[in-house]
Amino acid sequence: MKIAELRATPVAIGDPPLRSAFGLHAPFALRTIVEIETDAGVTGVAETYGGEAPLRAFARARPLVLGRDPWELTRIRVDIEKAERVTGNGHAWEARKLRAPALFAAIEVACLDAIGRATGRSVCDLLGGRVRGRVPFAAYLFFKQGGDDPWGEVMTSEAIVGEAREMVRRYGFRSLKLKGGVIDPDREADAIQVLREEFPRVPLRLDPNAAWSRATAHRVAKRLAGALEYLEDPVPGLDAMAEVAATAPMPLATNMCVTAFEHVPEAVAKRAVGIILSDHHMWGGMRATVELGRLCGAFGLGLSMHSNSHLGISLAAMVHVAAAVPELTYACDTHYPWQIDDVIKGGKLRIEHGEVAVPTGPGLGVELDRDALGRLHDEYTRSGLTVRDDVAEMRRRVDPNWRPHVGDW
Amino acid sequence: MKIAELRATPVAIGDPPLRSAFGLHAPFALRTIVEIETDAGVTGVAETYGGEAPLRAFARARPLVLGRDPWELTRIRVDIEKAERVTGNGHAWEARKLRAPALFAAIEVACLDAIGRATGRSVCDLLGGRVRGRVPFAAYLFFKQGGDDPWGEVMTSEAIVGEAREMVRRYGFRSLKLKGGVIDPDREADAIQVLREEFPRVPLRLDPNAAWSRATAHRVAKRLAGALEYLEDPVPGLDAMAEVAATAPMPLATNMCVTAFEHVPEAVAKRAVGIILSDHHMWGGMRATVELGRLCGAFGLGLSMHSNSHLGISLAAMVHVAAAVPELTYACDTHYPWQIDDVIKGGKLRIEHGEVAVPTGPGLGVELDRDALGRLHDEYTRSGLTVRDDVAEMRRRVDPNWRPHVGDW
Repeated sequence: MKIAELRATPVAIGDPPLRSAFGLHAPFALRTIVEIETDAGVTGVAETYGGEAPLRAFARARPLVLGRDPWELTRIRVDIEKAERVTGNGHAWEARKLRAPALFAAIEVACLDAIGRATGRSVCDLLGGRVRGRVPFAAYLFFKQGGDDPWGEVMTSEAIVGEAREMVRRYGFRSLKLKGGVIDPDREADAIQVLREEFPRVPLRLDPNAAWSRATAHRVAKRLAGALEYLEDPVPGLDAMAEVAATAPMPLATNMCVTAFEHVPEAVAKRAVGIILSDHHMWGGMRATVELGRLCGAFGLGLSMHSNSHLGISLAAMVHVAAAVPELTYACDTHYPWQIDDVIKGGKLRIEHGEVAVPTGPGLGVELDRDALGRLHDEYTRSGLTVRDDVAEMRRRVDPNWRPHVGDW
Repeated sequence: MKIAELRATPVAIGDPPLRSAFGLHAPFALRTIVEIETDAGVTGVAETYGGEAPLRAFARARPLVLGRDPWELTRIRVDIEKAERVTGNGHAWEARKLRAPALFAAIEVACLDAIGRATGRSVCDLLGGRVRGRVPFAAYLFFKQGGDDPWGEVMTSEAIVGEAREMVRRYGFRSLKLKGGVIDPDREADAIQVLREEFPRVPLRLDPNAAWSRATAHRVAKRLAGALEYLEDPVPGLDAMAEVAATAPMPLATNMCVTAFEHVPEAVAKRAVGIILSDHHMWGGMRATVELGRLCGAFGLGLSMHSNSHLGISLAAMVHVAAAVPELTYACDTHYPWQIDDVIKGGKLRIEHGEVAVPTGPGLGVELDRDALGRLHDEYTRSGLTVRDDVAEMRRRVDPNWRPHVGDW
């Protein structure tokens, strides 16, 4: 079996005006749909980061991938790593999308989908088989501006509780995560405490995206003792995280200061984090996530899963890998309920009782809807967006003088 | 595809009177040949530790394995881990053979062989594909008693050089490892220096199997500066290894004080070792070895491969996994040239230019020779051996008052 074609199609999906520590989501989230055609008559599909940078990366990878056997995954990875070897700036968001692990990850998922279709096996089976048939997800609660969406403005504790109630009513979530770093840290702690009262048995998480100062993190963490399952990235960088972790009554989690295997040793040495949020898109793929699980198990680190705005292909991949990793014992993050549209046939994957069943059928178990792909690609072209920029969007729509907090709130 | 039968056949293979820090190899090395029959008409095969303890372990595992899908590997692993959960004594050699990782490893290899045969793919492909088509091995040089074998007595530097010359002539090895802990440490250092002169460009290793004291290890390591690629397990335990590593001019390697994932964090924190010797038989299988490679890469640890006396099925598995792990950059250990017999069709696998080519054909690419299996099983029965005991053998044949050195030489 040989790879005959690699195709990367940029798409834009309608996204509500969600707030983050960085600013505001644009009206469209950008993604890339990756297809690998083989000479065996099967095609594999994957989904990854959007915008121009990934498109350039896939154009660079094309000659490394064409003519290869999709089973030859590690060699393709090593070749991409060699070709993409760059120095510095490994942590910046836009740079990460360009890095070899993200580029290889999308190609790997598409190859595994193709292999699954060729062998009649689920991608999950190619990762060692499932240890769970249904994968729990957390509701992803956001502060948000009002807009065309039915959720309205959500900028108070009361509105967050209303959003949480609706998320739980619709999807049955049994974990709740609040995206923080948006309003005053003590007001976000208020929101957590109101959620705690409203959902007394539901694990809660708060993610200020490194907007807080160490002093704020110490104070708020102490205040939220007993209320949080984990506190995610309260402060920027491993040193600050380590300082907060030393006194925080709950474990700290991260998808910001440990985003690659090479960041783990320093994090371990400094005891900076208790839980790593995996993300197969960023960490180098699904097999890399299985490997990360083993590493976390060995070092006594917890494992959860990070999400960006995404479609059903990414969700299917997230479910397959989460089902295969025994160490992944926390409910996964997902933005999926916030995106109305999708590129898969049969409508969006269902979240029931807060869980997504591992798709049945070979490969990822989802089929690309070419009409939907064409339509969302047209949206991409029309949107004029080529990069995610929450800061610019915030300045444009809400506050021309906006400057995100980075470790200073 | 379901597992319909799990069969474990004990075998004994003729073994020359090799000396180790523990004592003397018995006339037979014990191994177990594991077969998994599936309802899809394919059978998978594996090879692991021998004697009674593994047989009891496979008998315990049988009900956990029958009726399972061979692709369901992680679930089988988790179930075996639960069933085998025992406390303490995780480092003792005999106990290790009984531990869940070793038990699962053999089942995993047989399952991967069956999956490879069912899909027409090489086991190497099931591990992410090969990054090298030929796997380099090191000559495994032993001091030895004289006996029925053609190698004669080897108890001096000169005899070791003669053995090395013959190993290189026959197999083309381009790395040499000397099993130490047998004669006075300074005489072993002499042997290394004579090898260094005789083979000036060949990487050399010395493995005293933790027989030395810290003072001896400091002194001999200093004396062998520039002569050794690595010094393997000079002293027992992570604390002693860390103390020696702090001043040794070459990296320390281990297959004794880091033999499971849970040993890695302490080894890393203490900077006790630079190189881990993987062994899929002991570390929980071939996928676990891929995962160990990722972990070593992340933590800047080198990766090599350990060997016990073994047949061609183990060698094939070692070659498949070594071919699939990019981080495994050292020549692997193998006892294979010391064993004349085999259980695979077509005679022993060939070592040429010090390398073994990844076997072609589906699965492991080797076929069990049932006549040979029956013959070596009869040898097992006749041998009366049920456990490896180099100490008892040494007392019986060489020195009734033998007591192995453990960190005191």
